Amino acid sequence: MPSPTPRPILAISRRTRSTPFTPRVEASGVQGYTVYNHMLLPTAFRSVEADYQHLKTHVQVWDVGCERQVEVKGPDAARLVQMMTPRDLSKAKIGQCLYAPLVDADGMLLNDPVILKLAEDRFWISVADSDVLLWTKGLAFGRGLDVVVSEPDVWPLAIQGPKAEVLASRIFGEEVRGIGFFRFRTLTFHGHPLIVARSGWSKQGGFEIYLDRADLGLPLWDACMTAGADLDVGPGCPNLIERIESGLLSYGNDMTIANNPLECGLDKYCQLDSATSCIGRDALRRIAAEGAARKIMGLRLEGGAPPACVAPWPVRVEDKKVGIVTSAAYSPDFGASLAFAMLERGHWEPGGVVVVETPAGLRRGVISPLPFARS
Amino acid sequence: MPSPTPRPILAISRRTRSTPFTPRVEASGVQGYTVYNHMLLPTAFRSVEADYQHLKTHVQVWDVGCERQVEVKGPDAARLVQMMTPRDLSKAKIGQCLYAPLVDADGMLLNDPVILKLAEDRFWISVADSDVLLWTKGLAFGRGLDVVVSEPDVWPLAIQGPKAEVLASRIFGEEVRGIGFFRFRTLTFHGHPLIVARSGWSKQGGFEIYLDRADLGLPLWDACMTAGADLDVGPGCPNLIERIESGLLSYGNDMTIANNPLECGLDKYCQLDSATSCIGRDALRRIAAEGAARKIMGLRLEGGAPPACVAPWPVRVEDKKVGIVTSAAYSPDFGASLAFAMLERGHWEPGGVVVVETPAGLRRGVISPLPFARS
Repeated sequence: MPSPTPRPILAISRRTRSTPFTPRVEASGVQGYTVYNHMLLPTAFRSVEADYQHLKTHVQVWDVGCERQVEVKGPDAARLVQMMTPRDLSKAKIGQCLYAPLVDADGMLLNDPVILKLAEDRFWISVADSDVLLWTKGLAFGRGLDVVVSEPDVWPLAIQGPKAEVLASRIFGEEVRGIGFFRFRTLTFHGHPLIVARSGWSKQGGFEIYLDRADLGLPLWDACMTAGADLDVGPGCPNLIERIESGLLSYGNDMTIANNPLECGLDKYCQLDSATSCIGRDALRRIAAEGAARKIMGLRLEGGAPPACVAPWPVRVEDKKVGIVTSAAYSPDFGASLAFAMLERGHWEPGGVVVVETPAGLRRGVISPLPFARS
Repeated sequence: MPSPTPRPILAISRRTRSTPFTPRVEASGVQGYTVYNHMLLPTAFRSVEADYQHLKTHVQVWDVGCERQVEVKGPDAARLVQMMTPRDLSKAKIGQCLYAPLVDADGMLLNDPVILKLAEDRFWISVADSDVLLWTKGLAFGRGLDVVVSEPDVWPLAIQGPKAEVLASRIFGEEVRGIGFFRFRTLTFHGHPLIVARSGWSKQGGFEIYLDRADLGLPLWDACMTAGADLDVGPGCPNLIERIESGLLSYGNDMTIANNPLECGLDKYCQLDSATSCIGRDALRRIAAEGAARKIMGLRLEGGAPPACVAPWPVRVEDKKVGIVTSAAYSPDFGASLAFAMLERGHWEPGGVVVVETPAGLRRGVISPLPFARS
């Protein structure tokens, strides 16, 4: 693809919100941004490839302030949050983080947040890129529920990579090692309590720190960099290559409001036989009974690094369009180009061969389960 | 402000959606983008200054595909749309475009769309940058209303500038001249009916064409360029300098969910004594009775071109913080730097002098009514 050079810059204004960490992100030489929940999200520092190698070897500090929280608080909070997801939250415990698809009355995906249960009557819905705040407020108003719905000033900072636990323990003490996967505890930094969860948008291990005081943003960033100097800590961000290798789907990229969770491999987060009450369950039961019409699968593409997937690429078998590719990258560790593809029923068998129409020409691809297995 | 060079690029993916016009936008050498409603919005072609001069002299074609439509259709459509805004829509006519603030139960701004009345039971809410789709769906579901709420595949293309009517008449015929301000008609292009409104995000005059067939995107763009060759037509986009000169506020920049419409100069779109039923009216009545606590005003700043306002700048009178600047630019036509400022009660009198803390140092500013009057 003959990409125009130079690439357009991102014009930043108040509307594409900065975070308390932005001054350090800029000083660290951020190369690219995307906009996520109306907020800046870095996409590369040295390069996507160099950042990837570093992430998988050392430890990185990520400004993921764009992971906005929708706070639901009040007597009807648990009822409202359960209404919003087909995942059964009835056994959820305080201190737990729960990945949960949100769907509308037709069972279509509105977001795929992580829900933090802060108290029996208080939740944070840590959202992907759509204004769940407005959906939640609309439901609360429409149903006359006794809740307060807001977007608090909370900007997560992630510590990710194989040395993340060592680094986090130097900031928060040894107690950090006791935090279970997708659990959180309240720890202190500069005498201020902060929620720290073992979670994050990579499979390299790590933590997310829910910063709720803007003035502590730079001290927290700097503390990580200082404490991690001997660990080769560096600035980082969610990494395209690593997320594809790890099978981590992105709302807006790999799944949209035109998809239901069953076709996105999120079946295990849909308790369709649960006694709990949720929006869209009838629709999802119908879809489950009929069987999904399409499914997200992996593809191993022949050839070298593919171009950036800025719009879905058609996938064909002979002359028939059987799906789309939604994300793609060359993985050095797999020694292959990997992609996510939404494939139609009858065309998603692993091992099947398809042709992908990339802007750089046709590529053969072999269908693979997700996450990708090392061959 | 010592801006890091080079500025970070925008990393584009499927999530930051392209439009049917994007290939021409890129081929025209777009310099910068922002992301608006999860979609690419160009911010400059030659430069913000050169685009401004051209817009005010000639005619431009703007890819404003990011002006997404929330379609509300069905027996309860009129009731739901009226619920969403304090503007009295009871006398709205089919073919009318209505600028209308949307507020929540506390009277806080969720968006400031233009509402198109397509039929008695069908509306397009042409939204600024927030997911009004989710708010509308939440209300509809919560209230059990008999409507279908969707985001149709519609991408507006704007023709703006003093020669816009001449150009539009060459594309759509003389009938275009009969379209009143903030009215629309259905006209044909390549035999396909398209909604054409006399509206747009500048005060230079012009039209917005609601393209609903992606395959006609490039033909429409090209038709404008060909038909306008002798008019010096060029690619353009909403222009920061022109919008500030014209007093056009931007949701997310100059007003947010932390503001109510009364403090944003939108009083005339709030019929608080109307018999119609709308969310947040009680809250707005209380605010009106107490008087707004702050107000958006203009500022004329001393000195040359200000830096980009990427985060609000504090405004002071002596040592007291009395507000924030939210947008600023140097206006060649005014021969002055102009800004929008949200100022606290007691500090918004025209002629008053304030001090603005810009990243490039302190600037004196003189308070002015909006829109700015030529001095």
